[in-house]
Amino acid sequence: MSNHDNLRIGILGASGYTGGELIRLLSRHPKTYIGAVSAEKHAGKSVAEIFPQFRHLNLPILQKIDDFQWDSLDLVFCALPHGMTQELVTRLPKHIKIIDLSADFRLRQPSLYQHWYGHPHRAIDLQAQAIYGLSEVYRREIARATLVACPGCYPTAAQLALIPLLKDGLIETTPIMIDAKSGISGAGRELKQNSLFCETIEGIHAYGVNGHRHIPEIEQGLSDAAGKPVSISFIPHLVPMSRGILETIYVRLALDVTTTDIRECWLKIYKNSHFIDILLVGSSPETRHVRGTNRCAMSVLNNPIPGYATILVTIDNLVKGASGQAIQNMNIMMGYQENLGLEHIALFP
Amino acid sequence: MSNHDNLRIGILGASGYTGGELIRLLSRHPKTYIGAVSAEKHAGKSVAEIFPQFRHLNLPILQKIDDFQWDSLDLVFCALPHGMTQELVTRLPKHIKIIDLSADFRLRQPSLYQHWYGHPHRAIDLQAQAIYGLSEVYRREIARATLVACPGCYPTAAQLALIPLLKDGLIETTPIMIDAKSGISGAGRELKQNSLFCETIEGIHAYGVNGHRHIPEIEQGLSDAAGKPVSISFIPHLVPMSRGILETIYVRLALDVTTTDIRECWLKIYKNSHFIDILLVGSSPETRHVRGTNRCAMSVLNNPIPGYATILVTIDNLVKGASGQAIQNMNIMMGYQENLGLEHIALFP
Amino acid sequence: MSNHDNLRIGILGASGYTGGELIRLLSRHPKTYIGAVSAEKHAGKSVAEIFPQFRHLNLPILQKIDDFQWDSLDLVFCALPHGMTQELVTRLPKHIKIIDLSADFRLRQPSLYQHWYGHPHRAIDLQAQAIYGLSEVYRREIARATLVACPGCYPTAAQLALIPLLKDGLIETTPIMIDAKSGISGAGRELKQNSLFCETIEGIHAYGVNGHRHIPEIEQGLSDAAGKPVSISFIPHLVPMSRGILETIYVRLALDVTTTDIRECWLKIYKNSHFIDILLVGSSPETRHVRGTNRCAMSVLNNPIPGYATILVTIDNLVKGASGQAIQNMNIMMGYQENLGLEHIALFP
Amino acid sequence: MSNHDNLRIGILGASGYTGGELIRLLSRHPKTYIGAVSAEKHAGKSVAEIFPQFRHLNLPILQKIDDFQWDSLDLVFCALPHGMTQELVTRLPKHIKIIDLSADFRLRQPSLYQHWYGHPHRAIDLQAQAIYGLSEVYRREIARATLVACPGCYPTAAQLALIPLLKDGLIETTPIMIDAKSGISGAGRELKQNSLFCETIEGIHAYGVNGHRHIPEIEQGLSDAAGKPVSISFIPHLVPMSRGILETIYVRLALDVTTTDIRECWLKIYKNSHFIDILLVGSSPETRHVRGTNRCAMSVLNNPIPGYATILVTIDNLVKGASGQAIQNMNIMMGYQENLGLEHIALFP
Repeated sequence: MSNHDNLRIGILGASGYTGGELIRLLSRHPKTYIGAVSAEKHAGKSVAEIFPQFRHLNLPILQKIDDFQWDSLDLVFCALPHGMTQELVTRLPKHIKIIDLSADFRLRQPSLYQHWYGHPHRAIDLQAQAIYGLSEVYRREIARATLVACPGCYPTAAQLALIPLLKDGLIETTPIMIDAKSGISGAGRELKQNSLFCETIEGIHAYGVNGHRHIPEIEQGLSDAAGKPVSISFIPHLVPMSRGILETIYVRLALDVTTTDIRECWLKIYKNSHFIDILLVGSSPETRHVRGTNRCAMSVLNNPIPGYATILVTIDNLVKGASGQAIQNMNIMMGYQENLGLEHIALFP
Repeated sequence: MSNHDNLRIGILGASGYTGGELIRLLSRHPKTYIGAVSAEKHAGKSVAEIFPQFRHLNLPILQKIDDFQWDSLDLVFCALPHGMTQELVTRLPKHIKIIDLSADFRLRQPSLYQHWYGHPHRAIDLQAQAIYGLSEVYRREIARATLVACPGCYPTAAQLALIPLLKDGLIETTPIMIDAKSGISGAGRELKQNSLFCETIEGIHAYGVNGHRHIPEIEQGLSDAAGKPVSISFIPHLVPMSRGILETIYVRLALDVTTTDIRECWLKIYKNSHFIDILLVGSSPETRHVRGTNRCAMSVLNNPIPGYATILVTIDNLVKGASGQAIQNMNIMMGYQENLGLEHIALFP
Repeated sequence: MSNHDNLRIGILGASGYTGGELIRLLSRHPKTYIGAVSAEKHAGKSVAEIFPQFRHLNLPILQKIDDFQWDSLDLVFCALPHGMTQELVTRLPKHIKIIDLSADFRLRQPSLYQHWYGHPHRAIDLQAQAIYGLSEVYRREIARATLVACPGCYPTAAQLALIPLLKDGLIETTPIMIDAKSGISGAGRELKQNSLFCETIEGIHAYGVNGHRHIPEIEQGLSDAAGKPVSISFIPHLVPMSRGILETIYVRLALDVTTTDIRECWLKIYKNSHFIDILLVGSSPETRHVRGTNRCAMSVLNNPIPGYATILVTIDNLVKGASGQAIQNMNIMMGYQENLGLEHIALFP
Repeated sequence: MSNHDNLRIGILGASGYTGGELIRLLSRHPKTYIGAVSAEKHAGKSVAEIFPQFRHLNLPILQKIDDFQWDSLDLVFCALPHGMTQELVTRLPKHIKIIDLSADFRLRQPSLYQHWYGHPHRAIDLQAQAIYGLSEVYRREIARATLVACPGCYPTAAQLALIPLLKDGLIETTPIMIDAKSGISGAGRELKQNSLFCETIEGIHAYGVNGHRHIPEIEQGLSDAAGKPVSISFIPHLVPMSRGILETIYVRLALDVTTTDIRECWLKIYKNSHFIDILLVGSSPETRHVRGTNRCAMSVLNNPIPGYATILVTIDNLVKGASGQAIQNMNIMMGYQENLGLEHIALFP
């Protein structure tokens, strides 16, 4: 792992859950070497102080970003809070490739960014260069990118299921109702009352019911696929579990389309996509079977209401929905095998 | 509680979760006296051997049903597995009032029962006499009943939210998409792999995706309300928590109807229904805030797709979805105050 | 409940978990009326905004303590952070009885307080007047008190089990090893990383291993009982559950004492103590069977090491370990029946 | 992985949790090839039907053991219920190496086996040949073994912590109090009421309080180390989590021994033991930081009672406590690097 031919990686924002997940995955990746890790508040500490599960690994000490030696790095993963990457990247040396896990470069329209994130975008030029890192859909573009904006967790699942169907015209653009369920790590490691054990165990509720920031991102991708504006209903629910997203999506079928056609479409599009599992019609994918992995499982159900179908799609929000897909994008950018270092099997039970 | 003027109650099937919940609620009800409890496999044991939380209560020893002294009872709650009550009730003395928590008398059409439960109904005459125990909707009929069929847990929540809207023509009859989430106690205390801790913690999945027995029950109630056949989509999901149902329901609004109209309709209909909490438009009811109580909370959300609305409704599946509503029905049948003995406040955290 | 003859209660610090629990219990207590509730940060809000499970109750608006009308109150429960009650109580009108749930008045020795809490005690005179509110042990003193210091959660369980044995000389004073397990609500509703869902689910660990603030409190009580200084080992563990304390206590038996003698001692001492359940020798009390209740269950096990015994004792940390015992003390102070308003049955599952 | 030079593995009893864990670990092991998997009840099914997380792997179909082609296998892991391996192994061809995860060959004394397992041992000759597979302690013996009896989960943790201390005479042989906490997967995948989600979530309790089958196994190992009979107190507790064991062990120090001496002893003995993490004195290892890994973390605490110390030790019961240690033993037997294929990092959160 410390082979000097390896890709030298920096991880910005290493003390959160996606940062920790990057460390977990990259420290076993055969082509990378973690050269620097940042955490502003914890600068000077060992990684093991904030993530004891890494205590037996040989990792660099946490630093402030400003103390990074940029010459000794080839590529950085940005796992910073929203709004921070866009300020930072303008200052980085040109040789550094950037894979951003925040929302900063996901939305093409600056006005949309401003509307949902509450402040004007601070790197509009770079936004135009950023490639949207939905790996299975934008492989070719990602391969040539130097700045990749990794999708949000909910948008990854929704788009992987729906983009092929909209491209092929198998479903109508309206109504699309996405009923999403997520584990609590989706809210990050910040201290919020809603993330406390006692506030979340033994219950479920919908949140963000009057508008969630992932809506414009999903609509952007679906509109591209459909070739016309798509407006969705999206209701996320908080489930008392750490990881996992399950989306139950209610769609209207195009004329004469069957659920078998939907499955066939996925099989065709994802023929060479190693991480996508297309289950049989009428199957039920479970979050626990993709937990800790970069896999995405999907199925379609016959819906008793004529002309409708129900789609189920699941990922691990911290892996395929964040750090795993980020590394998959790195693999694509560097010309490595796409699944390199990402062949984890779900831990069950 | 052992007052000899009190209503003398028998609980058939006291060793399951709804049986335990009946004991919890009735042992603090000011007008009842638990005179007999049955559990075929545990006959001869104390209740505390199967439910240690009751060890300080003075309860009768568990018996076989055939050993009951029917003369000493006025009313029985049947918390038996499906198929057993219909055999039993034909043999009971006429003076015994019956409140059934199983599915045996919920479906009016015997053919529908046979289709979903796999055997011909064995008490077709009684089925015709049974009153459907959705308390807030059928109060008047329940007050005169001698055999009440308590609704299933999912149907209770769905119908309380939708019946008023269909009656008043505020929503279209199609599409109605019910995305339901339930705790694991909904599967009962039977030994099933899918109910094991290790199979359910830290994950979520849809189940019964090719047809769930509560579908015909919901459709029966909604069709009655709409005055025409209603066909629904219903996808239940298993959430890693003990209790609670949350239903997220996607509906199409009738012409010119708003979410405010929906809320007004509920407020009007449930004006005198103590257990129903109508939240503000855009609110999110949580299962944990009704846990252990007989309450039902509901709200409506503006749906960004024109002409649609999203409804959220929550209950505790073991209380309002089973044993609590059963006792509410008893109160109605006996002319007691409807909320007598049912004023529990949710245990949170 | 709003009967004007009822005891007029103020709750200081109503937005935390013990505050919420006081509201849950007092709002169904037949002799009390909640006249004022405080939460400095939430002043002006309704209680339902911070505890939606109370939305159907008729409760006063949250206030700052300084805005309380003291004339309209008879008794206050203080559920404030440690250090705040001792400042406050010196300013309260004399007619107000005070039941404090914090640690402020638990330790008789001011130096001990200063050592463990890091600042000099600010109301040393009052400390001398405060009565330690371990209800079953100090009933007589509590009945005459105007300031009661309710025990900590761990000390309640440990002392209820051990005080009778030390008083009667059935166990040696050393070694006493208390291996304690607690749910996460013990850490309160404050925002701490260690209380986050993702940091606590699916794991267990010991904490406070180099000294926990409940140690001097337990040692004070045990020393009083033994008539000589007692020094204990106390290791608390954080269990991924909301509520409940289980203590497994390893003790050395006095010469010729048997586990039967221990049980007999408890039976004798707690003969008239309604909330104490003495199980058979070799039984295992479970936290879930006392959850939400004011009960305490204990048992003793034969230990294969000659001369030793193992004791198991369990309570709900928020009820018998905090708000329930506080109300029990109020009942004793006011001459009400000791179990009035406290007859809850555990919610299981 | 299907390299024909690889070690050809059979897994007997592949449908339980330790069987599933063997598949998870072996299917990524660079030197092994899973050639056959058995599950009597599921013969003919794919592994994915019982463990959907393996659906993308290329695994053999489940068979009955009697249908195995023994010529095509080199080594078998037996993850069968207790009592079955001892019958089976007498019938196996001589060339097959056997690693048994059951209790069948752990106890050297047949009478002890009969006492705790309720039937006479059925392969007493083989029992004499079996090597006890506590990898770090018996490496040399394991390297030459053909039949390895892997330790139980609790005994693995307890012995790794205590054997070095008893060997070096740092602690007294009495009293040793092991307060153990385990996740629910320790009870296996069998259908038991005590393993249901609703019976275990939100609570903790001690079980096996009148004698647990792991007691004689621990005592055997500790007595060997001490050179004289050791009798222990062992109380296991069931924690609402899937995986993980934490043992809090109360010991008496030999004269003049300090906790620093204990840590030094561990550091010396485990210098070349890759999987053992010795934490600083006063540290608290957490189950979640070894979850899914073959690691064992331990620390010692100063105990305020003079002459005593407290030890904390944690493993994942399904990995180091079962399938991981079994593979570690295979690595030792085959002369592979001891940590080959076992370098997993804990999944957190």
